[in-house]
Amino acid sequence: MKLIISGAAGRMGRAILDSLYHEEDLELGAALEKKGHPAVGRDAGELIGVGKWKVSLTDQIKKAIQAGETVIDFTSPQNTLAILQEAMSKGKPMVIGTTGFLSDEEKKIAKAAEKIAIVLSPNMSVGVNLLFKLLAEAAEALGEAYDIEIVEMHHRQKRDAPSGTALRMGDVLARARKSPLSQVGRFSRQGNIGPRPSGEIGIQTLRGGDVVGDHTVIFAGPGERIEMTHRAHSRNNFARGALLAARWVVQQPPGLYDMMDVLNLKNRS
Amino acid sequence: MKLIISGAAGRMGRAILDSLYHEEDLELGAALEKKGHPAVGRDAGELIGVGKWKVSLTDQIKKAIQAGETVIDFTSPQNTLAILQEAMSKGKPMVIGTTGFLSDEEKKIAKAAEKIAIVLSPNMSVGVNLLFKLLAEAAEALGEAYDIEIVEMHHRQKRDAPSGTALRMGDVLARARKSPLSQVGRFSRQGNIGPRPSGEIGIQTLRGGDVVGDHTVIFAGPGERIEMTHRAHSRNNFARGALLAARWVVQQPPGLYDMMDVLNLKNRS
Amino acid sequence: MKLIISGAAGRMGRAILDSLYHEEDLELGAALEKKGHPAVGRDAGELIGVGKWKVSLTDQIKKAIQAGETVIDFTSPQNTLAILQEAMSKGKPMVIGTTGFLSDEEKKIAKAAEKIAIVLSPNMSVGVNLLFKLLAEAAEALGEAYDIEIVEMHHRQKRDAPSGTALRMGDVLARARKSPLSQVGRFSRQGNIGPRPSGEIGIQTLRGGDVVGDHTVIFAGPGERIEMTHRAHSRNNFARGALLAARWVVQQPPGLYDMMDVLNLKNRS
Amino acid sequence: MKLIISGAAGRMGRAILDSLYHEEDLELGAALEKKGHPAVGRDAGELIGVGKWKVSLTDQIKKAIQAGETVIDFTSPQNTLAILQEAMSKGKPMVIGTTGFLSDEEKKIAKAAEKIAIVLSPNMSVGVNLLFKLLAEAAEALGEAYDIEIVEMHHRQKRDAPSGTALRMGDVLARARKSPLSQVGRFSRQGNIGPRPSGEIGIQTLRGGDVVGDHTVIFAGPGERIEMTHRAHSRNNFARGALLAARWVVQQPPGLYDMMDVLNLKNRS
Repeated sequence: MKLIISGAAGRMGRAILDSLYHEEDLELGAALEKKGHPAVGRDAGELIGVGKWKVSLTDQIKKAIQAGETVIDFTSPQNTLAILQEAMSKGKPMVIGTTGFLSDEEKKIAKAAEKIAIVLSPNMSVGVNLLFKLLAEAAEALGEAYDIEIVEMHHRQKRDAPSGTALRMGDVLARARKSPLSQVGRFSRQGNIGPRPSGEIGIQTLRGGDVVGDHTVIFAGPGERIEMTHRAHSRNNFARGALLAARWVVQQPPGLYDMMDVLNLKNRS
Repeated sequence: MKLIISGAAGRMGRAILDSLYHEEDLELGAALEKKGHPAVGRDAGELIGVGKWKVSLTDQIKKAIQAGETVIDFTSPQNTLAILQEAMSKGKPMVIGTTGFLSDEEKKIAKAAEKIAIVLSPNMSVGVNLLFKLLAEAAEALGEAYDIEIVEMHHRQKRDAPSGTALRMGDVLARARKSPLSQVGRFSRQGNIGPRPSGEIGIQTLRGGDVVGDHTVIFAGPGERIEMTHRAHSRNNFARGALLAARWVVQQPPGLYDMMDVLNLKNRS
Repeated sequence: MKLIISGAAGRMGRAILDSLYHEEDLELGAALEKKGHPAVGRDAGELIGVGKWKVSLTDQIKKAIQAGETVIDFTSPQNTLAILQEAMSKGKPMVIGTTGFLSDEEKKIAKAAEKIAIVLSPNMSVGVNLLFKLLAEAAEALGEAYDIEIVEMHHRQKRDAPSGTALRMGDVLARARKSPLSQVGRFSRQGNIGPRPSGEIGIQTLRGGDVVGDHTVIFAGPGERIEMTHRAHSRNNFARGALLAARWVVQQPPGLYDMMDVLNLKNRS
Repeated sequence: MKLIISGAAGRMGRAILDSLYHEEDLELGAALEKKGHPAVGRDAGELIGVGKWKVSLTDQIKKAIQAGETVIDFTSPQNTLAILQEAMSKGKPMVIGTTGFLSDEEKKIAKAAEKIAIVLSPNMSVGVNLLFKLLAEAAEALGEAYDIEIVEMHHRQKRDAPSGTALRMGDVLARARKSPLSQVGRFSRQGNIGPRPSGEIGIQTLRGGDVVGDHTVIFAGPGERIEMTHRAHSRNNFARGALLAARWVVQQPPGLYDMMDVLNLKNRS
């Protein structure tokens, strides 16, 4: 299968090119970047330090979309929607890792998904998506006798806190207990806080160094603790998830999917 | 419900008495010890430092079994079988935490379970039993691209290695991958070991201090790791599991059960 | 050496009695409690479930102080000062674990320390005090290229956040970098926080279950992390520190000391 | 300062080029590779995907050594000795990260160090070298009441076990206790091992995924544990240490040094 990588010179784009380069069943059809990006015209292989790949970065959307069967896009909402328009008109499925869509932009994606298969997921890590499922099961099985705490750590440049993944974990855990995270989430503790309210879900944020991304959920109960930790070592982790999604989405009927669908983690529990 | 605690002056027995003392729906019917044990005749409450409980430790099995509705026993195989005989004859369900049964002793327990409901489990921790289930799911979902390593740590007095719980985890994980642990288990690495064989499950043992019991399973894959850890803080953890089992077993038909049944962790996956 | 244990029926008092009971070189001289405490008159051994010790809890300060050579006190500021008065008049050294003194109360202790040797420390754990020293060294050696984050976890009943020990760690680390913790401490992160300011020291608080007390300090730098963790398993840990302090203080000239002195952790670095 | 990077196309060589590229006070003088290496003639910048750097990889040792002030070499013993010969004859200091020298090769290095300053270190991580120092201090302060366990985890390709760094940690800890590691090291536990011998130092090895390198040392004592962990996120960590060593060694008189000297970790304790 030939892939079209959109946002190819970005951090995720390069990581995807790098993973793709090592896969035998996948080929690079086109590497897209925005008009004016300095990498346009460079060879995709030289961009990632593996020598000539004989595919140059292009800013021509129409041509690029025709050069492969599935599009992977990690760019910005506006740019993603432009690519989506073209993919839909050509009937090419898409894997979207872009974040920050407004609700009417999300509606446009849902609308497009009536015509093509789309995987939309802010975190394509296999491990993180598996954890979402296991966390929900644990929360249900343990009940409120076990206090839940989430801690995440990312590199010092990360601007939002807590991470989207930590918030999603909190959401999954809160739903399993039938309470909204907006009511039970606790993001800060300082001073005379008194005993911990039952049902609270703590979410604390650490920042430092170049940590790619660690998330730990603790279930602390009578006489014991369960700790479930995910550590991302490199963007390679997310890139590999995007390639799994691309292999999967090309075989699906039109519809809006996420990584839980790709990994078949939805129907079992 | 009134409980009969057998092995009441032992480490687990005391922990169970202590937990029981704080539960409102449970009462102490009898506290059994072996003939000749120095604690026989002492008040059960004074034994655990909470003042008079008005139940003295006894070595009279028949009388003790009649003083309650369910028996909890953490003693030795021989003693457990004697208690079991009496419980069966009176139709009282049993929770057995004793370990080290030979196979013909296990058969006797299975035979008794045709007449009474029995929960038999070497580790009654809620968290550990939940982990057994989640580990199997994770191993199935992640497949062999993720290397599995188990590390356990216990106090310096523990004589067997790895712990029974670590071995059970290894067994659960190996089964999920359809390989016997006897083939894929790796208990030691030293010298020029070469690249890690795919499918191997490492199980390493740490010993030190007064650590009650920690178990960690690591799934290490491309660009990421999942770590699932259980930490036992105190025997209170196992005692509470025994009380859960007692509440549950009294409502069951005859049969041989384990903690996965008690916690309803079996049928879902 | 005979010890006088003040606050003997409290949680720390019982833990100290329990540790003391197992030490061969130490004896129980007296077990003090406040007037009106229900445990007054009970045998100290029965209080902790080890049988008769033949020392009854007393509320008579003068008599108690004469019954041993060193006083260990974990009570309340006001009570501690009353005991201190009597200890000073009899020339008996003291180990004080009470917390929450106001500055003029601290002055009274310093004044008393001109006459008797006093060890005053809010955390008598050997490990925690060793960490204070190692943390300072690490912070100095690593410099500001390494971001410092502190995370602590305690049981759900703990009312203050962060723990006194976490704050002391923060203070030790900030001093090593010549910045006051009041300026560089960061106790909460939520929303669009932007890149992490250089020099910041994060201190985050987790609460849950019956965790006795965990503290982790992370130094996150370019391409690596150092994590230093202390886990308290039981109050036995603090009790043992108090006994070490008692053995040490009895051989010292008058003066105000802390656990860093007792453990000889001060002059080496 | 201009640096000569030997082994420039290897994994460590590329990591060093990448770190060097981002440092303002350092320049690339020459990038050396073995005769016949396919990267010879390529631009060093294109090798690491940052565009033209205008320094091509060369296999001409003499010319290369003249193009800078300090040599950094991560190659093989034989190759390192050839470079060393040339560096010595030109009076250029060297940073050597090559491992696996035989004892007579080590003697040659020591001999060369009478003429030029040499930093020789198998692990140039700042954090690891700092830990060596802190571990020794902890072992001395805690004594044999605290059991020591080491666990290391590396990627599945690593062929030797335990890692050289874990063994060095074991050696540092054993020396602090005045026992040789060959006597107290324990590399495997399986079966009926009995109570843990006092003084033992456990060293266990985990392998899996693409973990760059984690090392944890646990001191487990009465009622508490200290855990000291180092996590390497990327080779950038070792590369940065090599650059620190290069900046330092250029200012030293002839002599054989290691990273503890570079980081000034030797004389304080």
